[in-house]
Amino acid sequence: MTKHKIGILGASGYTGAELVRLIATHPGMQIAALTADRKAGSSMAEVFPHLRHLDLPRLVTIGEVDFTEIDLVFCALPHATTQQVVSALPRDLKIVDLSADFRLRDPAVYAQWYGHEHFALDMQTEAVYGLTEFYRDDIRSARLVAGTGCNAATGQYPIVPLLEAGLIEPDQIIIDLATGVSGAGRSAKEGMLHSEVSEGFHAYNVARHRHMAEFDQEFSKAAGRAVVCSFTAHLLPANRGILATIYVKGDAGAIHGALARRYAGERFIRMLPLGESPHTRHVRGSNFCDLGVASDRRAGRTILFSALDNLVKGASGQAIQNANLMLGLDESAGLMAPPLFP
Amino acid sequence: MTKHKIGILGASGYTGAELVRLIATHPGMQIAALTADRKAGSSMAEVFPHLRHLDLPRLVTIGEVDFTEIDLVFCALPHATTQQVVSALPRDLKIVDLSADFRLRDPAVYAQWYGHEHFALDMQTEAVYGLTEFYRDDIRSARLVAGTGCNAATGQYPIVPLLEAGLIEPDQIIIDLATGVSGAGRSAKEGMLHSEVSEGFHAYNVARHRHMAEFDQEFSKAAGRAVVCSFTAHLLPANRGILATIYVKGDAGAIHGALARRYAGERFIRMLPLGESPHTRHVRGSNFCDLGVASDRRAGRTILFSALDNLVKGASGQAIQNANLMLGLDESAGLMAPPLFP
Amino acid sequence: MTKHKIGILGASGYTGAELVRLIATHPGMQIAALTADRKAGSSMAEVFPHLRHLDLPRLVTIGEVDFTEIDLVFCALPHATTQQVVSALPRDLKIVDLSADFRLRDPAVYAQWYGHEHFALDMQTEAVYGLTEFYRDDIRSARLVAGTGCNAATGQYPIVPLLEAGLIEPDQIIIDLATGVSGAGRSAKEGMLHSEVSEGFHAYNVARHRHMAEFDQEFSKAAGRAVVCSFTAHLLPANRGILATIYVKGDAGAIHGALARRYAGERFIRMLPLGESPHTRHVRGSNFCDLGVASDRRAGRTILFSALDNLVKGASGQAIQNANLMLGLDESAGLMAPPLFP
Amino acid sequence: MTKHKIGILGASGYTGAELVRLIATHPGMQIAALTADRKAGSSMAEVFPHLRHLDLPRLVTIGEVDFTEIDLVFCALPHATTQQVVSALPRDLKIVDLSADFRLRDPAVYAQWYGHEHFALDMQTEAVYGLTEFYRDDIRSARLVAGTGCNAATGQYPIVPLLEAGLIEPDQIIIDLATGVSGAGRSAKEGMLHSEVSEGFHAYNVARHRHMAEFDQEFSKAAGRAVVCSFTAHLLPANRGILATIYVKGDAGAIHGALARRYAGERFIRMLPLGESPHTRHVRGSNFCDLGVASDRRAGRTILFSALDNLVKGASGQAIQNANLMLGLDESAGLMAPPLFP
Repeated sequence: MTKHKIGILGASGYTGAELVRLIATHPGMQIAALTADRKAGSSMAEVFPHLRHLDLPRLVTIGEVDFTEIDLVFCALPHATTQQVVSALPRDLKIVDLSADFRLRDPAVYAQWYGHEHFALDMQTEAVYGLTEFYRDDIRSARLVAGTGCNAATGQYPIVPLLEAGLIEPDQIIIDLATGVSGAGRSAKEGMLHSEVSEGFHAYNVARHRHMAEFDQEFSKAAGRAVVCSFTAHLLPANRGILATIYVKGDAGAIHGALARRYAGERFIRMLPLGESPHTRHVRGSNFCDLGVASDRRAGRTILFSALDNLVKGASGQAIQNANLMLGLDESAGLMAPPLFP
Repeated sequence: MTKHKIGILGASGYTGAELVRLIATHPGMQIAALTADRKAGSSMAEVFPHLRHLDLPRLVTIGEVDFTEIDLVFCALPHATTQQVVSALPRDLKIVDLSADFRLRDPAVYAQWYGHEHFALDMQTEAVYGLTEFYRDDIRSARLVAGTGCNAATGQYPIVPLLEAGLIEPDQIIIDLATGVSGAGRSAKEGMLHSEVSEGFHAYNVARHRHMAEFDQEFSKAAGRAVVCSFTAHLLPANRGILATIYVKGDAGAIHGALARRYAGERFIRMLPLGESPHTRHVRGSNFCDLGVASDRRAGRTILFSALDNLVKGASGQAIQNANLMLGLDESAGLMAPPLFP
Repeated sequence: MTKHKIGILGASGYTGAELVRLIATHPGMQIAALTADRKAGSSMAEVFPHLRHLDLPRLVTIGEVDFTEIDLVFCALPHATTQQVVSALPRDLKIVDLSADFRLRDPAVYAQWYGHEHFALDMQTEAVYGLTEFYRDDIRSARLVAGTGCNAATGQYPIVPLLEAGLIEPDQIIIDLATGVSGAGRSAKEGMLHSEVSEGFHAYNVARHRHMAEFDQEFSKAAGRAVVCSFTAHLLPANRGILATIYVKGDAGAIHGALARRYAGERFIRMLPLGESPHTRHVRGSNFCDLGVASDRRAGRTILFSALDNLVKGASGQAIQNANLMLGLDESAGLMAPPLFP
Repeated sequence: MTKHKIGILGASGYTGAELVRLIATHPGMQIAALTADRKAGSSMAEVFPHLRHLDLPRLVTIGEVDFTEIDLVFCALPHATTQQVVSALPRDLKIVDLSADFRLRDPAVYAQWYGHEHFALDMQTEAVYGLTEFYRDDIRSARLVAGTGCNAATGQYPIVPLLEAGLIEPDQIIIDLATGVSGAGRSAKEGMLHSEVSEGFHAYNVARHRHMAEFDQEFSKAAGRAVVCSFTAHLLPANRGILATIYVKGDAGAIHGALARRYAGERFIRMLPLGESPHTRHVRGSNFCDLGVASDRRAGRTILFSALDNLVKGASGQAIQNANLMLGLDESAGLMAPPLFP
């Protein structure tokens, strides 16, 4: 099989490295270009020694890439920067973006949550939201796919089908979530030091976390009316993994049945038996999202659980799943390695 | 000052060791007896090498203790066992119990949650619930004080004053909580192995955690009507610390003001400014409970945070605080060491 | 390609689960039988939920397995038990054993280190020692291959070629090593609890660790004379990974050159540039062993580093590498997935 | 008792916070000034929330401190900066310095290891090396005491008495050591992120670690001849704690006896029985150093172990121990709290 030529813009961060890790054993992709502005000139082995056995192109600046040789780029750059880079790319290049820049369809909502006007309004409307299991057909024919927020993906898998089916009360959704450290990226910040993160737990960005904008957009679309949920994210002293524990008003049996039916044909959503709840460690390193449903002791209320690896199903694995569709490959190509436990 | 003679029944568990740690620098207590049935004959240094510099009595069986020499015992035994041991102790001995056996005032409720009849019904009614800041006067004159569940304490500090003041809707309380591994004790269980706990997160005992019985009892008392909350506990890959994130219906400003006033004179409750949330790592090893209040983005809703060290304020520190009162000592004696961070 | 039928005896431990994980994406193997005496009747998903998406046979007892349907078994049972099980298997069945039972060629040495006579003396002499890069030809034609100790493998990769080449002083080898928790297996032991392992470091089995018997056997063979090294193993608060730091008398440049040449054609040995040292986290989940060489500041002395994942290159990955040879498959089949970092 | 007035220069780092933590319950010291140039104007609670209950002066710049009100300062500033700050302090102010600036008595050695001339040569010669148990009398009358390197202290406790007694071969000392993350301080560096440190192990600064200069100085003094050891430091995925595993030529029984006698009267050195080895977690948060001695299986060789908490006995606790002597207080004042385990 001829392999598709892949570029990764922003390869010096964790999502970039994770793309390289997954593509290394992908049967239909090969890496043709890697960029990292500040580390241009370095080898990937210097930046990520765990990849030292791979035969990879050197890191270059974006300007040095010959995009005529590339079939698809993954863009793993910071938000805001991304808009400017993506606008300047050839108009026929397929792009899977992992930043927040093209997730929100309404420019006003983008401006409200990110604090500035969007720099690429035309592309913002063109972009397809990258939650594969809900936008599969659109993604297949899309030129630009916007990867979801990792927390946003975790919350949407259990909730969106229930809002669509009218099985839960839209005004009483509370999403409480714990997320691994790698979600904060590799830039050096005091708050992400081992000494500051390990052996403890705390909430962050309380009542103002940007992934709520995605919940609002997608939950409202699913419910056919405005939905605003409560959401609190906590930082977990672990590198990978997100667990969302979600409190809803609705019947556990009906909810479990509906989710089981909705995801019966999905290879990456693993539905647990009613009453069981997932562990983040059981999805580590994999593209799976594990879902659990339990009856609350308060009558008519249900507790939902959703677990995924923020760097895989929440970012780079999701991106490859979408790219597989965009390139006409099997959707699960390169993504079936089981989780790494312990 | 003459020191009070202290016995610790069940000194080979983590709460026992933590009592010894705290008493080692306590100005008004000294350890006169340590028991541990299966480790009788061992030195404490063999069982807990971190305490090897202390001059301590050997571990003995309970039968070997001369209780006429003891002013107060801490009982750190498993539930059910505790009832039988405590019933057999001299009737004039002061007792601070750390098990679940005397927390629930209603024998029927005890039987429902613990699956068997209570073996010491008379003492069950005599026991005072050990949440010091709420039962201080009763504790001062009590002979038997029942230490609270560690999760139960964490949830009660922010909620009980609000129910008493009628500031929150009693039927819409959701307590989502993460708790450190040491709360499970030192007995060898597969699920508590490092390989099974580290680098991940999961909920446990969903909708059937026994600490809910304490919430029911104390919240209903505070509200003057039956209160049933939702509660989910998660296991944190950290040894110490509990963080409760609590979703309530009520006004954040009024709630923050009420909690600040309620705890203004309390030495161990540290109230954070409105909008800030605590870290478990900032209370580690200490007897503090840190409380935070933030306005939810859903109008009229508030998110509460409560953090404490499960082995100190949630168990052994709380027990010493109560014992200080029972012995006529300063309530904070031996308990003012700051948290250990990082 | 027709896949070879594989049995795993002792599938309920970490090495068993790791074999399943690796075989799940192996192009030439499929799992035909899984045994676990105490968990017989359970599904693998119940015992290891991270593998819940796989279509696997139920766990059965060894007696229930029809070995005529099996091409090769991996035996991941405790030592001593293994001898008895392996003796009773069909004489034409290919076996890769992961226990300590067939590593030592001299029965007297076995008895000395393991405290009892060997129960399967004939097979002990038949077994080939499973350090693939040194016994490749023997393994290809072997019926029974004995997987090495995980620590033993880590130490041998850097040292054996140097002893063979006479580049280091055989009487001055000191191996100081730190090993991850999963090496101790999944059985519940107080010393392996998260509370007892995390946030600390200690040596164990000082001067009496059984893996020294393998060093003695293989180092002496390589040097052509008796070699006894110093060896200390420490328990690392991490689940996977072994790092050996080794102090030898010899020239760093010559040593680096010799190792680079020796391993130039090896796919799983990654040689670092002179002066660099490896991280265990950069081999996690992979079958790589990373080697480093640095000049000590004491003249004529060199410090060697060797890092591998104890569950992969130190156990299950090594076992599959050997099985690939025994089955005539490509040696690296199923083993080229890059490490998982972070 | 009137308390001595204490200043802490550089209070926004971990050693500064640790000084505050220990002084908070110290019977003879009170904090009169805290400086932190970049955080001047902040409260300590903002910088270190775990200390939020303490009544402390605001952080100021060094220029704002009125040193006539101060009895003793702890200087917890980066090296090189320290020399300039300390030179400018009043000549009668007692100083305990925690940096590397005054540890090396020979200016040429300082220049060689730190890459520049020393800026305060007169004070360099005046300074007393702060390993309390070896320089106690000098410290008592010193004006300037130079705290030791944390790794340097860990290695010296077991080795110096043996060199003094001639019980080990000076040319065959190998110190292999693992150290907690907090030793690297609180400044944001990629290599100290949780994602980069947790779940792994690696050596750093191989054969060029600056603490070797202290070993050379003190070991040579103890032996009465030049001594050069091998030394490798590893980064431990834990916040606190150092374990040194040391390989020497000498008799284990004689060595254990000599160390036991040497440290019999020392309150902070805990000698383990022959054959036992310490855990870092058993000294966490305390001022203890635990020492172990085991006979190697190579005849005539011994393995030594030394464990301490890098922020306490390796830095701030050691500094207070020395300050106690300089101020005429009991040497152990404020330092007897047992370790925090788990």
